[in-house]
This record gives sequence, C-alpha cells and structure tokens, in this order.
Amino acid sequence: MSYFKFEVIHRSKKSRARVGRIHTPHGIIETPHFVGVGTNSAMKALDSKMIDNIDLQLMFANTYHLMLQPGSKTIKQAGGIHKFMNRTKPIITDSGGFQVFSLAYGGVASEIKSKGTKKQDASVLKITEDGVLFRSYRDGAKVLLTPETSIEAQKEIGADIMISFDELPPYHISERKLQASFERTHRWEKRSLDAHLKNPNKQALYAVIHGGINKDLRLKSCDILSKMAFDGYSIGGSVGKNRQEMFDMLSYTVPALPEDKPNHLLGIGDLESIKGMIPFGIDTFDSSHPTKAARHGHLFTKKGSLRATKGGNAHIFRPIEDDCTCWTCEHYTVAYLCHLFKANELTAFTLASIHNVHFMVELMKEYREKILRDEI
Amino acid sequence: MSYFKFEVIHRSKKSRARVGRIHTPHGIIETPHFVGVGTNSAMKALDSKMIDNIDLQLMFANTYHLMLQPGSKTIKQAGGIHKFMNRTKPIITDSGGFQVFSLAYGGVASEIKSKGTKKQDASVLKITEDGVLFRSYRDGAKVLLTPETSIEAQKEIGADIMISFDELPPYHISERKLQASFERTHRWEKRSLDAHLKNPNKQALYAVIHGGINKDLRLKSCDILSKMAFDGYSIGGSVGKNRQEMFDMLSYTVPALPEDKPNHLLGIGDLESIKGMIPFGIDTFDSSHPTKAARHGHLFTKKGSLRATKGGNAHIFRPIEDDCTCWTCEHYTVAYLCHLFKANELTAFTLASIHNVHFMVELMKEYREKILRDEI
Repeated sequence: MSYFKFEVIHRSKKSRARVGRIHTPHGIIETPHFVGVGTNSAMKALDSKMIDNIDLQLMFANTYHLMLQPGSKTIKQAGGIHKFMNRTKPIITDSGGFQVFSLAYGGVASEIKSKGTKKQDASVLKITEDGVLFRSYRDGAKVLLTPETSIEAQKEIGADIMISFDELPPYHISERKLQASFERTHRWEKRSLDAHLKNPNKQALYAVIHGGINKDLRLKSCDILSKMAFDGYSIGGSVGKNRQEMFDMLSYTVPALPEDKPNHLLGIGDLESIKGMIPFGIDTFDSSHPTKAARHGHLFTKKGSLRATKGGNAHIFRPIEDDCTCWTCEHYTVAYLCHLFKANELTAFTLASIHNVHFMVELMKEYREKILRDEI
Repeated sequence: MSYFKFEVIHRSKKSRARVGRIHTPHGIIETPHFVGVGTNSAMKALDSKMIDNIDLQLMFANTYHLMLQPGSKTIKQAGGIHKFMNRTKPIITDSGGFQVFSLAYGGVASEIKSKGTKKQDASVLKITEDGVLFRSYRDGAKVLLTPETSIEAQKEIGADIMISFDELPPYHISERKLQASFERTHRWEKRSLDAHLKNPNKQALYAVIHGGINKDLRLKSCDILSKMAFDGYSIGGSVGKNRQEMFDMLSYTVPALPEDKPNHLLGIGDLESIKGMIPFGIDTFDSSHPTKAARHGHLFTKKGSLRATKGGNAHIFRPIEDDCTCWTCEHYTVAYLCHLFKANELTAFTLASIHNVHFMVELMKEYREKILRDEI
C-alpha cells in the first residue's frame, strides 16, 4: 500500500540494529525513533505546534481514553485526530485493550508494566470471546470493546498507525489459562485485521506479538502473525520483570519478525532500556517516561538526569546543557527552572517537558548516526 | 530622569480618560494598559517569550514572594529579573507590604481585595514604626520588611518600576487606629523614596495613595505624596466594598493626582471594573483575573466569557473568536480546548491563558483607540 511503506536504510555490521524510514500519509518517521505519549491527544503540558517544532515524528494516543473523552465520533467530526489536535506529523493509536485489561487485573497489570496505581475506578463487567464489556469511568455507560469496535474507533480517530485489539493476560495465571488467552488474542488480532481490511482508510495496522517471556510462545506468536497482512509488528504483553528478562525476550523475538516490516516495543522508554534494546533492532518504542520525569523536575542531560530543585542549581545561570538547541535551553537557565519548580509554577512542567522530549529526539538521532557508522 | 518619562498623547474630550506612553529602560508602555501578574517572575502556565509575543508591555511581580524564593540576591546575581526570567519588556514590582499585611489581617485583607483564602501559613511577629517582622513560610526564618529593606530587595530584583512600602490597614478598625496607620504609611513612603534616591539605579518609584473610601483622607494622601518626587502614583489600600464605592473613590482621587505623572490602580482588572474606571483616567492596573479565569476554563470573548467545558462546545470546530490572532485561536478550536479541560490536561491552562492575556492586550488597544476618537 503506497500510503504506508517501510524501507531499511542501513543494517549495522555490529548488531541487529537498523536505520529505517516509515512513510505515512503525515510524513516520514526516521527509525529508531522515540514515540512521545499524548494519551488524550495532547502530550502533557505541551502544545502540538511545540512538539512539531521539536520534530518528534510519532506520537502515541490512547484509544480507550479518547473513546470516553471526547469520543471517537467527535474526533471524526473534527476531521480526525490530526486536525483535532492540529498535529501535522504521524500519530499511532493503541487498541484500548491494554487500559481495559489493566482495569480488570489492577495490580497485576501494574506489575507487568510497572505502572502506578490507577486513579480511574472504571470496572470490567465481562470478558467473553466477543470482547470486553466495561463501565465508563466518566458517565457510567456500558461500553463493549471488541476487535471490531476497537478498529472502528481507531478508524474514527484516524491515526496513521493502529494496533490490533489483543488480550493482556495477568502475570500470574495458570498454564491452561495462559494458553487459552494466547489463543484468543490471536483470534482477536485476526478479527482486527479483517475489520481493518474492509476499509483501509489510508491507515496501517500493527499486530501485537504475545507470549510473555516464554520463548516457544513468542516464536509461535511471531509465526502466526507474520503470516497475516499486518503492516508492522508491536511487541506487547508481559515483556519481563526486569531489563535482562526483556533483553532475553527481544533476543529471540525480534529475529523472528518479518525483516521488511517495522516493529514497535510497547511502553518502554527509559534511557537504560533504550541503550540495551537498540542493538536488538527495535524501530520505535513509546514511553511517557521523559515527560513524566520532566514534571517531577528530572532534566535529561548527556551526563545523566539532573534534579532541577537540587540546592546548587539555584545559582546555575546557564542552560541545562550549553549545546542544547531546545526552546528551554535557548531561553532559560537552570536557576530559573529550579526556581519555577520550587515555586510550584506550572510553567516549569512545560519548559522541562520541552527539554526532555527534545533530548529524546536528539538522542535517537545520535543512535541512528551510530548505527549508520556500525558503532552499535 | 531620562530613563523614565511619561507623555500624554491625548486627553479625551468626553471624560478624564487619556492615552499616554511610559518610557522605561525596557521599552514603552502604551497606556491605558493591562498589567499581567507574574507573582513568582512567571505568569502562571506561560513562558516569558510567549508573553513578549503577545505584546503585554508591563508585568507585575511580587517582591514578598521573590524575597522568599529564590531570594532577591539570587535575582541580582542572575543580572536582574529581566535576565532571570528572560523578559525583554517592562516589569513592575510591589513592595511586599500587601502580602505581609494580608498575612497579619487574614480574612480582613481578603475582604478588602476579595482575595481567596491564603494557603501560605506565614505569620507576622511584630509591626513597629520600623516595619514588619514576619516568619518565612518557606524556611521559618525571621524576615524584617521595612521601607529600606523593601527598596533594597526591589533594587536587587531590578524591575523598571518599584512601589513604596506602605501599611495596609484592616477594613474594620477604629478611627484612631486608621488615622495612626494613615500617618505611618506616609512616613514609610517618604523613607522608601529617600532610600530609592540614594541609588536610583535606572528604576522609577511609585507612591501608594491611601485613605480608603474617605474623601478627605484620599485627598490628603494625594496632597502629601504629590509634593514628593515620585515618578508615578498607585492607588492602593481599600478601594471600596464594591464597584460603585471604587468608582466614587476614583472620581475624586484621580483628579487630585499630578497630571504629568502616570497612575496605577492596584489589583483590579475584571472587565466590568475596567470599563468603569477607564473614563476616570486610570493609566495602568494589574490583575490576575484573566489568567485565573483561564485556568478555570473561562475564555474571554467580545460577547462575554465562554465556559470551555459547556456541553455544546465539544463540537465547535472553530477558534474561540474567528478574528482573534492569538496563538491559541490560530492553532486550536473550542472543541479541542473543551476536551483538554474535560480531560484535565495541563495544556488547557496554557492555551486558555494565552488567549485571555492576548484578549486583554487587544481590549486595551481598543480602549486607547476609542479615547483617541473621544468616544470614551
């Protein structure tokens, strides 16, 4: 399909790392690329034009949240999510499944993705072969999420890339239940693909590779889904309790994916994990870590994270990094940021977020250059 | 003094309204002008460059807050408040007196200025002829605020315009106590002026006219302070329990001020009050109302305030005002703002604040044009 294309520019001689380009109706995503999280069609404390200026080439929005507020039909009426939020560059949406199952399994899902406690007290009413019935935390209405309704909502939202509706099994379940969930999630992904192909709408659809940290299951998942006409492959489900488990899983999972399709690692984006996962050939990955860290006053630098409110910073009348070209570093000093955080000024969140997102974009540029030089 | 000059461009034939220009070391303030409040050297949810772009020509910062965080000496080390916050246009600071007396009188001060409950539990330890001794809400340290220390702090902060240290009497006090306070505040203002003139530092100093809603006292205050070499005159203390009391007070106070000096009304800036006070000849006035209203989702329009989250707004895919040229209206719709407020996104505060501040700047431009045409 000409509106979505992936090309590999270079494969490193040193590892499986690769530099590529994903072509979408809203422009090119240079890979590897960090994907910023804009759950509610806004990255927290940032406006769309600012993110465009930073050249963040892919933003992640959450279908579950957007279905409930403002509603996918409202976004369709606005002309799609790009027009709604006035973003010109590519957007990816998830299926809504992850959030719904997080609600169902609560602490277990939190364990899997090391997420904090959920504040939204929605509730899952029923999980059947058809899909998941849950109660909206906003107005109490019953909402049925199935492969077909998820794809319908994602079509209404209109992102460049969609993700198949899958089942997220809790971390601790019996072998029998895990097997049943594994089989059902692949049936749901097939149904997602069928729903998508009826009306491609210039959108691409990624599968979600499952199987937890079980090598046989991961390979089986890659095998099943590789045979289907997905445009890309995201790696989801439980990716391990710690980084080493995740790296082990990536070592056998990524090579089992179609080489000519882009892949995406769901929900991972701390700096240590990125460093470790790039050599396995990850193309894109989304994480709210850089913006969340920013709001907590942690400013990214090449020498590690700088705590804005640290005592000595009150008198650092220089930018966070002298050679940084972000809006924040071009206009403000560490001393000013330190003050804004200490004075609880909202402006602090915006300025710190701009810097951290810009840092991620530049970091990925450096990774791409290193791969091109076969240094990774 | 050549670094500070006030020129009247036009006096209305219809009222006492006038159009003028205040020249400062950081540029011109076209009057009448709305003065945005950036208490902690930041207007809430906005960054300095954005406010510069809106052409807000004067920003108000609070000496009390800045003395405690980051400390006026830190701002001096930064090269002054303009460099500290990277603002290129003029800034005015108050003396710190209002905040300290608000702490001392609590609810009564709230009554006077219709402020909400104070969250900061600082405490005033002693009020003497010398000044006010209070305990810092940040670190518990004892801080002595006198005319001399206030001016010293304001010199370190380095705004273009400073305000004399005055005493804010509570609303309900005996005639004898009011008289004593009235006399002391004028002694304090004289001491402020003396301290200032020892080291003018290219700054201007405004007096504060006192006397509550007592005509004799207001006129006496104008008389005493007009004879001193202040660069401008702010109207402070109790300005009345309601708009009519304020208008009555302005009707006899403004004509008693030196015609060749700019005046400033302290802490008033709702749209109805502005409409009523411009014909009395008010040059500048500060208020946090536009940004506070913005954070509560009240968007200013020529037809009145629009509540962002109002049901029907979810489907208004147009800017707040079609002919508005602010960043928010140029890039985003009412539907998007409605969504951001409903989804509790921080971005909402920034976008709404940009619009309301821009609205105020444009509104004042219109007022100036109307005065030039003798329509007000």
